[in-house]
Amino acid sequence: MGVRALVFDVFGTLMDWRSGVAREASRLLAPYAPGLDAGAFASAWRGRYQPSMETVRSGARAYVDLDTLHAESLPGVLAEFGLDDVPHDVRAELVLAWHRLDAWPEVPAALARLRNRFLLAPNSNGPVRLMVDLARRNGLVFDAVLGAGYSRDYKPKPALYRDAVAAFGFPASETMMVAAHSDDLRHAASHGLATAHIARPREHGPAGGETAPSVPVTYTASDLSDLADRLGCP
Amino acid sequence: MGVRALVFDVFGTLMDWRSGVAREASRLLAPYAPGLDAGAFASAWRGRYQPSMETVRSGARAYVDLDTLHAESLPGVLAEFGLDDVPHDVRAELVLAWHRLDAWPEVPAALARLRNRFLLAPNSNGPVRLMVDLARRNGLVFDAVLGAGYSRDYKPKPALYRDAVAAFGFPASETMMVAAHSDDLRHAASHGLATAHIARPREHGPAGGETAPSVPVTYTASDLSDLADRLGCP
Repeated sequence: MGVRALVFDVFGTLMDWRSGVAREASRLLAPYAPGLDAGAFASAWRGRYQPSMETVRSGARAYVDLDTLHAESLPGVLAEFGLDDVPHDVRAELVLAWHRLDAWPEVPAALARLRNRFLLAPNSNGPVRLMVDLARRNGLVFDAVLGAGYSRDYKPKPALYRDAVAAFGFPASETMMVAAHSDDLRHAASHGLATAHIARPREHGPAGGETAPSVPVTYTASDLSDLADRLGCP
Repeated sequence: MGVRALVFDVFGTLMDWRSGVAREASRLLAPYAPGLDAGAFASAWRGRYQPSMETVRSGARAYVDLDTLHAESLPGVLAEFGLDDVPHDVRAELVLAWHRLDAWPEVPAALARLRNRFLLAPNSNGPVRLMVDLARRNGLVFDAVLGAGYSRDYKPKPALYRDAVAAFGFPASETMMVAAHSDDLRHAASHGLATAHIARPREHGPAGGETAPSVPVTYTASDLSDLADRLGCP
């Protein structure tokens, strides 16, 4: 086995989306919802993520990016929390909350270690600019940005895994998908990629997160720093 | 005017393709062609670049990447130089010459300065892995890799300029195409992008290169360091 390139899930695996969205929701919605449970708001918004992408994955509509899907799903989330009167400009800022996430604490240093040995790219459902904003905010350096923007579709459609392999040009078995989600890794493995599972027990706040993979994987790690150790990165 | 993102032509603008390909051709073909004019060989290969891309641009064939086009045009170039007997493995290595180019001397430091103020991406006819190899070899850091791999077509098709603007998400006028080729800049401007011309008087060796733009541009610079100065980068 000789892994040469790592491609990363981002929301949940590299980024703590729930805390970041909750922070921005709390700040932006304070005038409208003083007692808002901002963590629950973030989770409710994320709950609409898979159904919103399904309209594109099914072919029912042409590819639109995740900012568009977030903007489309936001009114329903606001309504759930009794916040129908939030003005347009605040809604637009809320959509940008997803561009202002913080990485899990060990990620910046661990990714820099991994970059000394491997080619790296996000393989996320977020578009290029969203990935760029998260990378710049957190001081992450990637070699390319793959994923939904590059493939014009959403995981787990085959194009996302096949295009990531083809873009770096190594055999699939030398390209490793890194994710905190067993389903993502199951699909990656079905296309021949190596897989690494990262435990993220707090991804969903009080609702927890995956502490171990539920599918066979090539590597399992307690966090990204542990993965760098296991891959022999100084 | 408020440029926020820079997208770069690569072959000729950031990289000295002729010297790099000549170096590799000289090394790899030494056993077969002791007196080879390696610079002329590089120029002859580059001479087949536009016609080879035209088969994709015209829609006559589906997108294939530049490595494939370079491999397809190589036998004709070898035949021109009386080198029909070069073995398959040497030909495959020759195609990789295009992944082993050196940047023009001022580029690494100038690009690092530009990265402090702007989002950066190559917008080249080379595919992702080729861009990654050149960036790694020369210590360049980009925010994303746009261009032929991202758009599955070749400059100057409109998709290359439109997709680059859309990927970073700024208005076209805040996205600047940087190139040593007036034709590339003319097309970029036709899609509303700002433009910067970089003089590369030695791009084609003894045949010279563009010392000034032949079309109206937003900025003109003697090299990339001069552009960083003109854009006010410390």
